[in-house]
Amino acid sequence: MSASTTQPGCLRLAVAQTRPVGTSAEGLALLREACVDARAQQADLLVMPEMGLTGYAWPLPQLSTLAEPADGPLCRAACALAREHRLALVIGYPERGAEGALYNAAQLIDAEGVPRLHYRKTHLFGSLDRDRFRAGDTLPKPVVLHGFRLALAICYDIEFPELARSYRLQDADVLLVPTANMHPYTSVATTLVPARAEENGLYVAYANYCGAEGGLHYCGRSSICGPDGRTLAQAGEAAPALIFADLRTDVLEQVRAAQPYLADRRPDLYLR
Amino acid sequence: MSASTTQPGCLRLAVAQTRPVGTSAEGLALLREACVDARAQQADLLVMPEMGLTGYAWPLPQLSTLAEPADGPLCRAACALAREHRLALVIGYPERGAEGALYNAAQLIDAEGVPRLHYRKTHLFGSLDRDRFRAGDTLPKPVVLHGFRLALAICYDIEFPELARSYRLQDADVLLVPTANMHPYTSVATTLVPARAEENGLYVAYANYCGAEGGLHYCGRSSICGPDGRTLAQAGEAAPALIFADLRTDVLEQVRAAQPYLADRRPDLYLR
Repeated sequence: MSASTTQPGCLRLAVAQTRPVGTSAEGLALLREACVDARAQQADLLVMPEMGLTGYAWPLPQLSTLAEPADGPLCRAACALAREHRLALVIGYPERGAEGALYNAAQLIDAEGVPRLHYRKTHLFGSLDRDRFRAGDTLPKPVVLHGFRLALAICYDIEFPELARSYRLQDADVLLVPTANMHPYTSVATTLVPARAEENGLYVAYANYCGAEGGLHYCGRSSICGPDGRTLAQAGEAAPALIFADLRTDVLEQVRAAQPYLADRRPDLYLR
Repeated sequence: MSASTTQPGCLRLAVAQTRPVGTSAEGLALLREACVDARAQQADLLVMPEMGLTGYAWPLPQLSTLAEPADGPLCRAACALAREHRLALVIGYPERGAEGALYNAAQLIDAEGVPRLHYRKTHLFGSLDRDRFRAGDTLPKPVVLHGFRLALAICYDIEFPELARSYRLQDADVLLVPTANMHPYTSVATTLVPARAEENGLYVAYANYCGAEGGLHYCGRSSICGPDGRTLAQAGEAAPALIFADLRTDVLEQVRAAQPYLADRRPDLYLR
């Protein structure tokens, strides 16, 4: 059973778990392949891993040559693929800001090939990120597709409960999270991602790598969690995979009515 | 291997999973029994379930007769047991505030029988709590025992990431959580409690009931989680149990150095 793109309040979500790529050409080829497979299974939206268009663990000199503006050739090629396949996409790439700094970035592109949401990783992970990227300074307002309000985060961001909560307080329904998570941090996928979903009444999609790159051993377990925290689909640890779930706004409403976390908060007591 | 009370930076923690009790006399008898068992296994601190001294699911008229001030006879009896067994205790009970309102309360009593920390549940759970209790309005500063800074929460409180984070921002090391959690909410013990531990670098102890009371079917799974989110000890679903873990300040330091969540937060971006 799969949701059609024409059913209101339904969104069929695909999450790709891929091996890291060695060139942007390979990144685009892999994206094209995932588009074909996701569309063959009626997906409306496909989420790719962190910096999926180029690979993640590049030393700074290579990274610097791979980086491009938000409307650079790689992102334009991704928009063309979205339009060609009538499939919304979340893609990750290294971004060169107008001022010259590098950002670890992601974009949501709709099925007409129009960029709808742009995000720069706000929580940098150790020297791996800090030596190469400047942190983003915005949690952009969610955008609506198929009746769902979609928000973006990248990898380490999801480990901070404040980020998912801040998006939920901006009315997000689905948090889309390209990631490049490695051993020994499997508990992010098995504990923290389900927790973010449950404690906020959100769908969370977590798209990771498998395999190795630059000394990093990725831990897979890409997953889609429902707003009650249940894992609706999960990839294994070691092999590429394309996983799917049918998201429904009526399920969101039911879960939120049964678990009114937002209404029961005590912001008067919380430290920040 | 068990930590001795004299080892610096070690605390042997016991968590009791009990059936609900029908009278305060039964509540005290059960506490005494747990004290004996915990002490026989070298525990330094024993955590009992939510309102463990009286049972939780009382209709308001009975509850009103069971409630007593923070220094009432039940709490004084618990202090005497702590002193007798040289065992610190976390006990839960219905409290009558000075102004007459009822609170769902807990106290930490040290091994000399001195009350050290007093907490009133701040997040009320549905009509079960709201029809009977007034919410507390303080997250009291953690207190030190055996070199650990201990904080209190009650049941539903732990489902809110802001509460555990607020305690961590007050330098808490261990979060002690009497609870009365029922089916179908097992994921609190299996997902949210480990998440609170991991995302804050805290030990979390969650003491639940098994069995049934007033139409509630408790789901057990009392647990102790380490600061890396690993479940160190967990009871089953249906049977009473006494579980143990040896807490160590050097483990806290190691985990926090490896996962510096507090330093990596972006409070400038968070909504509240």
